[in-house]
Amino acid sequence: MPSSSTGVCDPADLTSPVALVLIDVINSLEFPNAEALLKQALPMSLRLQALRAAARRHDVPIIYVNDNFGRWRSDFRSQIDDCLQPDVLGRPIAERLKPEEGDYFILKPMHSGFYLTPLELLLARLETKTLILTGMATNICVFLTANDAHMRGFRLVVPADCCAAESEADHQFTLEQLEKVMQADTGPSTEIDFEKLLAPA
Amino acid sequence: MPSSSTGVCDPADLTSPVALVLIDVINSLEFPNAEALLKQALPMSLRLQALRAAARRHDVPIIYVNDNFGRWRSDFRSQIDDCLQPDVLGRPIAERLKPEEGDYFILKPMHSGFYLTPLELLLARLETKTLILTGMATNICVFLTANDAHMRGFRLVVPADCCAAESEADHQFTLEQLEKVMQADTGPSTEIDFEKLLAPA
Amino acid sequence: MPSSSTGVCDPADLTSPVALVLIDVINSLEFPNAEALLKQALPMSLRLQALRAAARRHDVPIIYVNDNFGRWRSDFRSQIDDCLQPDVLGRPIAERLKPEEGDYFILKPMHSGFYLTPLELLLARLETKTLILTGMATNICVFLTANDAHMRGFRLVVPADCCAAESEADHQFTLEQLEKVMQADTGPSTEIDFEKLLAPA
Amino acid sequence: MPSSSTGVCDPADLTSPVALVLIDVINSLEFPNAEALLKQALPMSLRLQALRAAARRHDVPIIYVNDNFGRWRSDFRSQIDDCLQPDVLGRPIAERLKPEEGDYFILKPMHSGFYLTPLELLLARLETKTLILTGMATNICVFLTANDAHMRGFRLVVPADCCAAESEADHQFTLEQLEKVMQADTGPSTEIDFEKLLAPA
Repeated sequence: MPSSSTGVCDPADLTSPVALVLIDVINSLEFPNAEALLKQALPMSLRLQALRAAARRHDVPIIYVNDNFGRWRSDFRSQIDDCLQPDVLGRPIAERLKPEEGDYFILKPMHSGFYLTPLELLLARLETKTLILTGMATNICVFLTANDAHMRGFRLVVPADCCAAESEADHQFTLEQLEKVMQADTGPSTEIDFEKLLAPA
Repeated sequence: MPSSSTGVCDPADLTSPVALVLIDVINSLEFPNAEALLKQALPMSLRLQALRAAARRHDVPIIYVNDNFGRWRSDFRSQIDDCLQPDVLGRPIAERLKPEEGDYFILKPMHSGFYLTPLELLLARLETKTLILTGMATNICVFLTANDAHMRGFRLVVPADCCAAESEADHQFTLEQLEKVMQADTGPSTEIDFEKLLAPA
Repeated sequence: MPSSSTGVCDPADLTSPVALVLIDVINSLEFPNAEALLKQALPMSLRLQALRAAARRHDVPIIYVNDNFGRWRSDFRSQIDDCLQPDVLGRPIAERLKPEEGDYFILKPMHSGFYLTPLELLLARLETKTLILTGMATNICVFLTANDAHMRGFRLVVPADCCAAESEADHQFTLEQLEKVMQADTGPSTEIDFEKLLAPA
Repeated sequence: MPSSSTGVCDPADLTSPVALVLIDVINSLEFPNAEALLKQALPMSLRLQALRAAARRHDVPIIYVNDNFGRWRSDFRSQIDDCLQPDVLGRPIAERLKPEEGDYFILKPMHSGFYLTPLELLLARLETKTLILTGMATNICVFLTANDAHMRGFRLVVPADCCAAESEADHQFTLEQLEKVMQADTGPSTEIDFEKLLAPA
C-alpha cells in the first residue's frame, strides 16, 4: 500500500543512539529443566527492572524481542496474558518485566532477534547504534541475537547481571566470548552510564 | 529459550500444500487517492470473501499478511479494531474480510510479505508450495510479495478478481507480468479448483 | 576469522553517495527468444558504455551485479571468458561492457541483486544512498533489484535508455511503475548530472 | 534474465542429503595472534584432508565457505593464489586443503556462512539436510555458521578434530554449546559414517 511503503514512523517514535532490548522475558518457562533457569532469572529480573527504569528516565527506547513460541496465531498481548496466569512458572518474571505503554515489541520465530523479524529496520528507524542486550538465556537467545547484531555493526553492551542461563558455566563462558569476539561491554548494569552512551559521538 | 528453539508448531497447525494469503486487506486507506483504490477494492472484497469461504471449507490455511503501517507498538488485533471504527475509509473491507479464529497473521514492515517477516518459515512449517495471493494493491504489495515468493520457488495463483489496484491499467499490466515472468495462474477465483491444488503431486 | 570479522575494506575502496549498477550484462543470452532482447540490448549497451565512462570520470563506483546462471562452481572471471567466446549471442554486449580493474562485482543466484547476496553490505561500506540501475531485462532483474533497493531506502535512478527488455511494452510499463511506485528518476542517461548526485545533501 | 530465473543447476550438480563444509581454510592468517590459531590448525588440516577424501569417495558435495576478507573485487581463485604465495602464514593449510575441480565455493562477507550469501539456496538445490561443518575458528565463524544452520533446520555434525580455535578453552566450550544447544554430533571425524548419513531417512 502506498502509505505503508513510505514506512512512516509513529509520531511517538523518537530516535536514540542506544536502545534497551529485553529478550524472552515474557516466557511461560514450560520446558525441561526450566527451574534451573528460573533460579538464575529471578534475581536477574530485579536488576533488569531497575535498568529498565533508568532507561525510561533517559528516554531510551525499550524493545521487547520475544519468542512467539510456535504460536503463529497469537500476538504479544495475548502471550503476556498467558504468562500472567496463576501456576505459570515464568509468572513472577513476566509480572515484574511486562511492557508498558510506549514500549516496542518484536516477535521472533527462532532464537535470534534478527532472524526473520523487522528488528533491523526498527533500529534503523530509531537510528540506534548501541544495543543493551538483556534477558534469557545468556548462551542461547541472547548470544545468538548478539552474534547477529555484531555482524550488522552494532556496538554491544551485555550487562552480566541482567541476563541469565541455566548454568553459571554457560553464562560465564558466553560473556567471555561476547567480550573477546564481539568487544561487548559486559560490566554490571549499575555501571551503565546512559548519559555517556547517549552523547553525540 | 530451549522451547523456542525447537520451533514447535501449535497443535492446531495442519500442513497444507496450498495457502490463501490476504495482503493488506485490514487497511484504513488513509492515503492520497485512496478512493480510487476503494472503488476497485469493494467489489473485489466480495469475491475474496467467497474465495476465503471456499478455502475454509477445504481446510486451506488463511494467512493475513498485513502492513504494520509504521506502528511498531501495536499488534494486529488493535489494527483491526482501528479499521472497524466509523469514518474509516477502509472499514467496509475490513468488516467483510476480518480474520476469524484459527487464521494466521504476519505483520510486514514494508511492501513484500517476505521482507523482514517470518512468512517463509511459517510456510515451511505448513509445507506449503502453492500460494493464492490476493488483496491490494495488485501492482505494489501483491506484486512485490509475488516476486519474493517466485524467487523462493513457490507456485503462484493470483486470481485477477481477488486483487485490486488504483487503476485498471496498473492492475492489468501487473497480471500480465505475473503470468509471463512468474508463470502465475491469474484466472478468476471461481475457477480455482481446491481439490486439484490439494491433491498430492 | 578475526580479521574477517572486522570487515575491513580494501584500501582502494572510496565511499560514494552514488553508485552505477550494471545488471546481467555479462550474459550468454542462451534462452528462448533471446534475439528479441538482444535487438533492444545492443543499442542500449552503447549508451550504457558512455554512462559508465562518465561514472568513471567522476570516481563513481561501478558494480556488476550478475547472475551466476546456476553455475555454483565458477566465478565471475570465468563467466566473462565464457561470454567472450565466438558464437555466443551475448558476446557483443559482454565485449563492450566487460568490467575493468577496480570495478566491483556481486554474483546473484536469482533475479534480485539483493536476494542472498552481499550487495546491501557493500553499499553500506561505500556509504551509497543513490543507485543508478542499468542492464537487462528491465521488467525482470532490473525491476526486482529496484524493488528490493526501494524497500531498503535507496533513491533510484533508472535511465530508460540504459536498460532493455524483450518488448517495448514490458520496458515502458516497468519504467512507469518505477516512477509511480518508487519515485525513480527514469530520464535519459545523458541528463544524469553526476556532480549534483555527488554533492553533499 | 529468464534463464537465470529458473535457477537451473549445473548438470554436474548431484543432490546429496549430506555436505561437507570447509570454513575459512583459504586464509592468509594475517591478524594478531594468528600463530596461536595456526598451531592448532596445522594438525587439524591433516585430519580434515582425510575427511575430505572420504567425502569425495562417497560423492558428498564439498563446499568451501570462505571469507572475502573485505576484498570485494577479487574472486575465490585469486584468493587461493594469494594464500599460496611464499611467506604467507596460512600457506601450508591452503596448500593442503585447496579446492579441486567440482568443489563448490561461497564467498561470505562476514562471520556466518549464511549471512548475505547464497549458501541456503545452494543447499536447497542439493537437497542437503545434514551439514558437516569444519575449519576455523571453532568459536567464531564455525560457531556462527552453525547457529544459522540450526535456525534453518539443518542437522549438524561438527567433528571436534576438524576445526580449530586460538585456545583450547574456546574450542572446547564451543563444542559443548554446539552439543547442548544444537544437538550437534561433535565426535571425531574418523567415526563419521558416510554410508549411514547418506542412507534414506
